[in-house]
Amino acid sequence: MKMRDWWPADVTDRALLVFDLTGVFVFAVEGALAAVRAQLDVFGVLVLAFATALGGGLIRDLLIGAVPPKAICDWRYGATALAGGGAVICFSPLFVEAPIHLMIGLDAAGLALCAVAGATKALEYRIPGLLATLMGVLTGVGGGTLRDLMLARVPNVLRADIYAVAALAGATVVVLGLKFGRSKSWAMILGGVLCFALRMVAVTRGWNLPHVALH
Amino acid sequence: MKMRDWWPADVTDRALLVFDLTGVFVFAVEGALAAVRAQLDVFGVLVLAFATALGGGLIRDLLIGAVPPKAICDWRYGATALAGGGAVICFSPLFVEAPIHLMIGLDAAGLALCAVAGATKALEYRIPGLLATLMGVLTGVGGGTLRDLMLARVPNVLRADIYAVAALAGATVVVLGLKFGRSKSWAMILGGVLCFALRMVAVTRGWNLPHVALH
Amino acid sequence: MKMRDWWPADVTDRALLVFDLTGVFVFAVEGALAAVRAQLDVFGVLVLAFATALGGGLIRDLLIGAVPPKAICDWRYGATALAGGGAVICFSPLFVEAPIHLMIGLDAAGLALCAVAGATKALEYRIPGLLATLMGVLTGVGGGTLRDLMLARVPNVLRADIYAVAALAGATVVVLGLKFGRSKSWAMILGGVLCFALRMVAVTRGWNLPHVALH
Repeated sequence: MKMRDWWPADVTDRALLVFDLTGVFVFAVEGALAAVRAQLDVFGVLVLAFATALGGGLIRDLLIGAVPPKAICDWRYGATALAGGGAVICFSPLFVEAPIHLMIGLDAAGLALCAVAGATKALEYRIPGLLATLMGVLTGVGGGTLRDLMLARVPNVLRADIYAVAALAGATVVVLGLKFGRSKSWAMILGGVLCFALRMVAVTRGWNLPHVALH
Repeated sequence: MKMRDWWPADVTDRALLVFDLTGVFVFAVEGALAAVRAQLDVFGVLVLAFATALGGGLIRDLLIGAVPPKAICDWRYGATALAGGGAVICFSPLFVEAPIHLMIGLDAAGLALCAVAGATKALEYRIPGLLATLMGVLTGVGGGTLRDLMLARVPNVLRADIYAVAALAGATVVVLGLKFGRSKSWAMILGGVLCFALRMVAVTRGWNLPHVALH
Repeated sequence: MKMRDWWPADVTDRALLVFDLTGVFVFAVEGALAAVRAQLDVFGVLVLAFATALGGGLIRDLLIGAVPPKAICDWRYGATALAGGGAVICFSPLFVEAPIHLMIGLDAAGLALCAVAGATKALEYRIPGLLATLMGVLTGVGGGTLRDLMLARVPNVLRADIYAVAALAGATVVVLGLKFGRSKSWAMILGGVLCFALRMVAVTRGWNLPHVALH
């Protein structure tokens, strides 16, 4: 499963952890910014940072039976999420003025990471393929959904944008890849790149999913 | 526990599964129609179909410790829910024009099935009687509550209609029946029929629960 | 761990249970009053009583892996919550006219109890200190958050008031106290008193947490 035999597993693990925590930080910043815009107080900002960054993985872990969830067992995840929220509290102008393309790119990378890692973890817990794919999507979009619900809004992911579909594409590639015996690394890289690319193209071109007409 | 000795258990199991999946399909269609009316996109329609159809059982399973929940372990449930959502996406006029009495009848049957099966499962997991009854109600009304919450609305079941009370009546009959040593089949049939009948009479006569006056 | 050797453990346990159920009753009354004000029907009043009183502990138990949660295993908790809701339904004028300071004092006591007991239980389940502190806060404010979400409102605790911070202070004292080897009783009493006092002073003086300016 290691990428190459001469590549130390420890380095891969560290790299994955760094990726993972970077994604948590980016999502936490987005949640915190939404909280600031909704005029929550500093406690509310930290709660939304935590929920947005870790909510998707948390719900997935509860559903697949990985209890207690990693976000509750490993303090580095919670600390990173709170650091993201704290950074927004201390330096909010910096984040508001950050180039929008940088934020979108980082968000798409976080989405790809979550979708791919979420589907893989569900398969490791022997969840059937169809539902493992959905668990990948849930990991990617669950945090943002929770954030919108706590702001008493209809989750944006249910209404507009190609966002969940990008996660779905990435998770599907991972599940099919692993079912057909491909190496874990390649399935995850391929799925992640597909999810990232699809999301970036969709944003650039302003793609939306169709709505259903009622009459 | 089998209905009669000469009745093959396999047939009963298959019949129960067919009933169960029919209920999932009906609830999925209702969730999907609510999503279409709220102008969600096709992803939102599928999510609400899934959440409405399987949310109640999912939350019940998490609470009673049946992890991972059946809806996550057994792909037939998720596939049926998505099929219900997909059917609405493809043939929405058909469902909008379906006779309202047929939809209400199927919904009441699904409610009865959920309430009765939910209470029975909670008892099997050694949950005390009072809470097993509540788990039956939760199984019946949880999906619709989740649907309303995701649409940022106060859940309808908390405000109007005799809906949860019908589920409560059915679940109570099951719990009392099993506590007093009646056969599982008869307790479930009696509870289910009571729930269904109460719901249908309430709809026909326009019954509502009382509100509490504040002054 | 007992307070003194000549003090029978049984009495301490009973006292803790009485405290605990009193807190559940007070939170249930608050949830039920919010439901009555939002014009829910009697079923909605009972659901909000249950969710407000037991929601925080329930979610904490799911997250730390204490499944099924105590609120689902032990019927006395559910019965007390429903009794609180039932009392509001039967005697709503009594509660509306109750002295506001009594209600605030009882609520602060319930908050202190939840925060301290929640953090302690998380530590017993080997959750790391940072997250055990957050679990204490969640136990204290989770029920009220759930109540607001079910009424389709932005949770009040995220927007105003020194409420979660009082719970945070109490939970932090407990976690630090136990990490540094202090007796459980003293850590819990100290944390509880701090949380209660901070909350009461904040209410009296009208303290609020700061908001983050966006520009």
